[in-house]
Amino acid sequence: MNQKEKVDIILYNGVVLTINCSDEIIDYGAIAIKGNRIINLGKSEDIRNKYQAEKEIDVNRGVIMPGLVNTHTHLAMSLFRGLADDLSLDKWLNEHIFPAEEKFINKDSAYWGSLLSCAELILSGTTTFCDMYFFEKETGFAAEKAGVRGVIGEGIVSEFGDENEIFANKMELTAELLDKFEKSSLVSIAIEPHSCYTCSKEILIKAKRFADENNLLFVTHLCETKKEVEGIKNKLGMSPVEYLDEIGVLDERTLAAHCVWLSDADIDVLKKKDVKISHCPNSNTKLASGIAPVGKLLEKLVIVGLGTDGSASNNNLDMFSEISSASKLSKVSTLNPETLTARKTIRMATINGAKALGMEREIGSLEIGKKADIIILDFNKPHLVPIYNYYSHLVYSVSGGDVQSCIIDGKIVMEERKILSFNVEEVMQKVNEIARKINVL
Amino acid sequence: MNQKEKVDIILYNGVVLTINCSDEIIDYGAIAIKGNRIINLGKSEDIRNKYQAEKEIDVNRGVIMPGLVNTHTHLAMSLFRGLADDLSLDKWLNEHIFPAEEKFINKDSAYWGSLLSCAELILSGTTTFCDMYFFEKETGFAAEKAGVRGVIGEGIVSEFGDENEIFANKMELTAELLDKFEKSSLVSIAIEPHSCYTCSKEILIKAKRFADENNLLFVTHLCETKKEVEGIKNKLGMSPVEYLDEIGVLDERTLAAHCVWLSDADIDVLKKKDVKISHCPNSNTKLASGIAPVGKLLEKLVIVGLGTDGSASNNNLDMFSEISSASKLSKVSTLNPETLTARKTIRMATINGAKALGMEREIGSLEIGKKADIIILDFNKPHLVPIYNYYSHLVYSVSGGDVQSCIIDGKIVMEERKILSFNVEEVMQKVNEIARKINVL
Repeated sequence: MNQKEKVDIILYNGVVLTINCSDEIIDYGAIAIKGNRIINLGKSEDIRNKYQAEKEIDVNRGVIMPGLVNTHTHLAMSLFRGLADDLSLDKWLNEHIFPAEEKFINKDSAYWGSLLSCAELILSGTTTFCDMYFFEKETGFAAEKAGVRGVIGEGIVSEFGDENEIFANKMELTAELLDKFEKSSLVSIAIEPHSCYTCSKEILIKAKRFADENNLLFVTHLCETKKEVEGIKNKLGMSPVEYLDEIGVLDERTLAAHCVWLSDADIDVLKKKDVKISHCPNSNTKLASGIAPVGKLLEKLVIVGLGTDGSASNNNLDMFSEISSASKLSKVSTLNPETLTARKTIRMATINGAKALGMEREIGSLEIGKKADIIILDFNKPHLVPIYNYYSHLVYSVSGGDVQSCIIDGKIVMEERKILSFNVEEVMQKVNEIARKINVL
Repeated sequence: MNQKEKVDIILYNGVVLTINCSDEIIDYGAIAIKGNRIINLGKSEDIRNKYQAEKEIDVNRGVIMPGLVNTHTHLAMSLFRGLADDLSLDKWLNEHIFPAEEKFINKDSAYWGSLLSCAELILSGTTTFCDMYFFEKETGFAAEKAGVRGVIGEGIVSEFGDENEIFANKMELTAELLDKFEKSSLVSIAIEPHSCYTCSKEILIKAKRFADENNLLFVTHLCETKKEVEGIKNKLGMSPVEYLDEIGVLDERTLAAHCVWLSDADIDVLKKKDVKISHCPNSNTKLASGIAPVGKLLEKLVIVGLGTDGSASNNNLDMFSEISSASKLSKVSTLNPETLTARKTIRMATINGAKALGMEREIGSLEIGKKADIIILDFNKPHLVPIYNYYSHLVYSVSGGDVQSCIIDGKIVMEERKILSFNVEEVMQKVNEIARKINVL
C-alpha cells in the first residue's frame, strides 16, 4: 500500500492560477503546503494520491491564486479614513492630515490603526504590504499579530526640524526594527525617506547609503503631482527623477511610489537604473494627481507593482479595486483598450509586486518551494457567472469581498470570510474610540 | 393606552440618508412602510411609538438609503460577461458581441441572463434599472420575478435589414410590452433606438413620435466614441447632438447614454432641451471610449444619472463601483479634486437617476409617500471603520457586497445577503448551461 507523505494543508478541487512564467492554469488543481512553503502543486488527483494532511480544503471549483502584493501603504492612516476628501494632495496633507497626525498618531493609535488595516488587507486578498509611516515597530507588531507579510520603514521627513537630529533618530528606530524583527518570518525592513521635496539632498544620500550598507529596499514617493515636479524643476532645473539620479539614489533596490508625472526621458532613466515603480491608481485619481503612464513604463519593461496608498486617500485597501482601476485607467488615458490587459494587470498585482519589493524568489506566484501566501476566491456568485476567462473576472468583475480564504506563510489567517488570527471586533472598537477623539478636531 | 398604527415593515436604529432636497440625515432613524410606500420616517423612538409592524428590523446602526438607480443596462448581456475584453467598442461589438447575439440570444437565454443580472442588481443595492435589448418581454418577466423595478425597451437597430419591417416589428413588440405590463407596479416601457449611427433618420423620428404619443421615455446611445462623432460629422457635417436636435428628437423625455465626446456647443444644446444623461464611467474606461465631461454637464445643471452599461462591457453591475469611478474620473480628468464631491455623486446615483427616468416623484429619495425602494448597508466592517462622513464611505470605501438588505416596492427582496424572491442557484446553473454552448463559439 502506498504510504502518503504528511503535509500540513492541502487545497484541492480548485482552478489554480500559478502566475508562473508561462501563466500556467491548473484546472481541478491542488496545492500541498508544509510548514510555510508550497511543497507541491498539480492535478487534485495526483496531489491527493501523494499527500495527506490534517487540513484538506475542498475549494469547490473556486480560484486559488497567489496572495496580492500591495507595494505602497500607510497602514495606520486608516484612522483618518474619510476625515477629509475632495481636496488636493497639498490641502489634504497640510491642512488636515499633518495636523491630525501631529495630535493623534502615537504608539497606541498606530498599532490599532495598523491592525485594522491588516484585517482589511486579509479580507480583500492582500498577503504582503510595503508600509511607510511613523511608529513602524507597532505596524510590525500588528503584522505579526495578524499574520500578514510586510515590509516596514520609518517615514523620514527632514523639513520639520533639525535634519541631522531627525535622521539620527530615524536610524536609531530603524536599528531597533532590524533587531526586533531579525528573526521574523513575516516582517522585513526598508529605508523610507518621504520624498525629494520633504527631505534634503544630504538626508536622501545618507538614507540610501544606510540602505545599501544593510541591503535594504529604499522607498520614496516620486513625481506624484504636477506641483511637485514643477517645484523641483523651478528650484533645481531638473526633474525629480533626474535629481534623484544625479545624487545617486536610484538603482534596482529603489522603489518609487506614484510616478504620475514622468517625461519620456524620466522613464528612460528609471529603466536604465532598474528602479521599481509602485502604481497607485485610486489614490492618484481621488486626489486628482493624474494618471501614471503605465503603458509606457511597461513598454520599456520597467517593473511596476500596484499599491493602494493609505486608506485616508483611497479610501480602502482593496487591491482588486486597484487592479480594475489600473487596467481601465491605462486604457482610457491612451484611448487604447488593448493596453494593460487583464493578464498583465494580475501579474502587476502579484509577481511584479513581489519583484518591486525584491521578494520574487519567495512570493508572488504559486511554485514549488515558494512561501505559501495563497488566496481562494469563491466564483459561485451571480456577478462572476458565467466564466469564459478567469483573468477577466479577476480584473473586471471581482471585488475584495469575493476572497473566501487567505493563507499567509503557511497559516490560514482567514477562512470563509472569518479572520482567525485576531479579534477584529475588538480592533474596530478600539479604532472607533480613537476616532471619537479625532472627530472633534 | 396609545393604539399604534399597523404598518407592514419598520426599519429602525439606522442612519437614514434621505437624499431629500436638503440631504437630511436622520441619526437613530426609522422608516415605516405600508404596502409599497414609505408612510413615515423620523427618529426611531418616534416611529416606534407611533407604529407597529409584523416585521421590525433593527438595522443596528447601519445606513438606510434609497435604492440605487441604474440608468443604463443591457441585462441579458450577463451571458457574455468576460467573453471578449481588452478590445475597442467597435471590434468588441462587431467581431464578438453581434455574432454571439445572433446565435445565442433567444427568448429563453434572454430570460435567464436578465434574471441573473437582477440577482446582481439586488445584491449590490440597485432597485431600479433602465434596460435596452432584445426579447425585453423576458427581461420584464425577470424583473417581476426578482421584484426589481425596471424600465424596459426593445433596442431598435434599423441597419440590419428592411428598416420599415424592423420598425413595424419593434412597435408590435412594444405594443405587447405596453399591454403585458400595463398593471405592473414594477415594470414600465420606453422606446429605445440604439443610436444615430445604427438607425436611420426616419426611424429615429418615427420612434420619437411613438414615444411622445404614448408618453414614454426615449432612450438612445449618444456620443459614446470619438469614432462615432467623427463618422457623423464626416457624413452630415454636424455633431450627433446637433443632428438629433435638428431632427427634433431631443427633449426632456430623452435619455442619452454615455455622452463622452461632447463639445461645449453640444452641452448647451443638451441643457437647452433638458435632455437627461446616463453616465457610464466603467464601461467608457474599459472600452477606452473616453471620460465624459461630467463636471461641465453639472455646471450647466444638466441632469446626469449613472449607469453600468451591460456586464459584457463593464464587467459587473455594481453601482457602488460606478459611483466611485464617476467621482474619481471627474477629478483626475480635470485635475480638480473638488469636482463631483461624494455628496453630489450619491445624488447622481439616486435622485438624479430617478429624474433621468422621469420617476423622481416616485423613487430616488426617502420621503413620505414615495415608493419603498430602500437599501440597508452594514458599516460594521474593517474597511468602513472609523466613520467621519457617511457620504465619503459610500463613494470611496463601500462596494456592492456591503449592501445587507434590499426592499423594493415595499417587499424585502434580499435580507442578510440572501435573495428571497427567487432561487439564485437555479439561475446560475441555467446561465452556466447556456454559456457552455457559447464558449465553443
